[in-house]
Amino acid sequence: MLNRLNSLYRYFGSAAAATMSPKKVTIIGSGNWGSAIARIVGNTTKSFPDQFDPQVRMYVYEEIVNGEKLSEVINTRHENIKYLPGKILPENVVAVTDLVKSCEGSNILIFVVPHQFVKGLCEKLVGKIPADTQAISLIKGISFDKNEQGVSTGGIERGGLKLISEEIKEILKIEVSVLMGANLAPEVANDNFCEATIGCKRKAEDGPLLKKLFHTDNFRINVVEDAHTVELCGALKNVVACAAGFTDGLGYGDNTKAAVIRLGLMETTKFVEHYYPGSNLETFFESCGIADLITTCYGGRNRKVCEAFVKTGKTLAEVEKELLNGQSAQGPLTAEEVYLMMKKTGLDAKFPLFTAVHKICAGEMKPAELVDCLRNHPEHM
Amino acid sequence: MLNRLNSLYRYFGSAAAATMSPKKVTIIGSGNWGSAIARIVGNTTKSFPDQFDPQVRMYVYEEIVNGEKLSEVINTRHENIKYLPGKILPENVVAVTDLVKSCEGSNILIFVVPHQFVKGLCEKLVGKIPADTQAISLIKGISFDKNEQGVSTGGIERGGLKLISEEIKEILKIEVSVLMGANLAPEVANDNFCEATIGCKRKAEDGPLLKKLFHTDNFRINVVEDAHTVELCGALKNVVACAAGFTDGLGYGDNTKAAVIRLGLMETTKFVEHYYPGSNLETFFESCGIADLITTCYGGRNRKVCEAFVKTGKTLAEVEKELLNGQSAQGPLTAEEVYLMMKKTGLDAKFPLFTAVHKICAGEMKPAELVDCLRNHPEHM
Repeated sequence: MLNRLNSLYRYFGSAAAATMSPKKVTIIGSGNWGSAIARIVGNTTKSFPDQFDPQVRMYVYEEIVNGEKLSEVINTRHENIKYLPGKILPENVVAVTDLVKSCEGSNILIFVVPHQFVKGLCEKLVGKIPADTQAISLIKGISFDKNEQGVSTGGIERGGLKLISEEIKEILKIEVSVLMGANLAPEVANDNFCEATIGCKRKAEDGPLLKKLFHTDNFRINVVEDAHTVELCGALKNVVACAAGFTDGLGYGDNTKAAVIRLGLMETTKFVEHYYPGSNLETFFESCGIADLITTCYGGRNRKVCEAFVKTGKTLAEVEKELLNGQSAQGPLTAEEVYLMMKKTGLDAKFPLFTAVHKICAGEMKPAELVDCLRNHPEHM
Repeated sequence: MLNRLNSLYRYFGSAAAATMSPKKVTIIGSGNWGSAIARIVGNTTKSFPDQFDPQVRMYVYEEIVNGEKLSEVINTRHENIKYLPGKILPENVVAVTDLVKSCEGSNILIFVVPHQFVKGLCEKLVGKIPADTQAISLIKGISFDKNEQGVSTGGIERGGLKLISEEIKEILKIEVSVLMGANLAPEVANDNFCEATIGCKRKAEDGPLLKKLFHTDNFRINVVEDAHTVELCGALKNVVACAAGFTDGLGYGDNTKAAVIRLGLMETTKFVEHYYPGSNLETFFESCGIADLITTCYGGRNRKVCEAFVKTGKTLAEVEKELLNGQSAQGPLTAEEVYLMMKKTGLDAKFPLFTAVHKICAGEMKPAELVDCLRNHPEHM
């Protein structure tokens, strides 16, 4: 009896403590998207002092910009002059250049770095964060190991594919949610009205707090449980956007572009269903699904680069350099990774659009052949 | 026994005859879209002489264009110089100016006229067509009677709403399918690759033949049974496109536009589900759904007119006159009809985007208030 009381006490005691103590939040990353998110999270944490510690630490990879340290500029003038010039960050967002220090005692880690840095950063954090810390990834891409056969949960061979959330979870052993949506960073930074989707497997427990952390008047959050679908939508839309860019470059007009976007969405649904079975069709109607796809296929940089690739005849690397001001286009890389894993698992023929995007990017197929690959699409059978 | 044999004979005899005798096809309408479709149907009917009579009659409302009769120009020079100049129609497409004659003995009627003419045309055809004729409507809009309470199948009050297919069926007592999709007419006439959806309640019986009639290398058809959804997608996307046009006019960028399009799609799904229960979520992934919505919200005339309406401060009628070269924008009209029926059935508050589009078009609300109406959208609860 005493044991039971003790355990009840421990249970409610710790639950109460968890409710009482405001969560510390760290943003890992300080690029364009990370800085735009810092403007939101800096404000929401101030608005809910019961829930959140108002100081938000932001891990900044130190750089010298016009002779000044970026972290110092952020901490004195509250502006990321390199990646989000002209926008003021809330004063409670504090730049920290030491990764481990930036995460010390943190309850919520927001990952928003280029995906090739995830592994290295996570490895540095092993054993340095509280056991009940949770993460949320805003990274759009997939992790892929050419030499691995990949995660095989429930007997599904994934040919080397791994989600960024799975990679973080594997290294840090913590819960990882994702946030994706139709969110071109400059427009979010401009406070234009938009929506985003949080994919959170423990929706009932973690969903409300995460929603509070990101939801504002102009950044409207829906939370769904179907986190894998949310994350894969975020990665695969860049492949579809390449195809949309090719049709733009070829001057095919709105009907063809809409057909290409639709077939890309259908391949996305089939891809998710095959490699991560149990997805919910409704998730594709969320901001992470069709809305992000539309934005990316009209306003995103993958579209832009692929249009120029067709029009100029230059290499992808050349147009990227000319157009993206040092940023990279994720689409061709994701297309290659997806292609390799489909090849390994023998499914490339079932995804003619994804396959064509990779082959065009790799110079194995002419852009003008795209539509020929789609004419007998499985969707038309 | 003899009776039974007789009836079997009649059954198989007439079935065989139905299979054997090529179907006569009439296109009712000769505008931009009707002429683009005539180019397709003229060719498919020639390709399948076992299935179709190669002569396709096209009902043409006679007009004098540059001193010549439009029907005579079509029948001699094979060009609709008024509505699709520069594109040659197949020679087997024959213009007929008498409606009843154009439909005499026809097995398939393709309706492609502005929706206000449907009722009058159908009434003229009563008793003049074979009993087993079927129709397919390419008309994007709804029929609405302010004074009626509307069709109430299965106890659902529709507040005066009627689908065009229902209107045709009611008057002519024949099966009516629909064809909708991401099909801007000039691009279809240009043979750009695109897709379309046929909604056909008797999919197993009628689907294959209808697919044959429209399916080409560059016009890819999927057939679904869920015809009401297909038709409502075609009508309601014009309302969503108005909202997209407002955001363009207000300069809100891609994120906001994608959010507006997504919320419009969600209202469309809810609208269909409420007024025509039993819809299939997958239908919204067809060309008639998201693809047509995207095309219309980026390249369509409702978007264009509504953008100009916001930017210039002129009336909708004025910008329509200036921009559309005699054509009309269906969106504001559909928005009004939808609003009135939602009002009647007490559901306007559940559809804030549809409601806002009507109020903005009617001058009861400022365009800049659109986003305020969406901030607490039921989808965000």
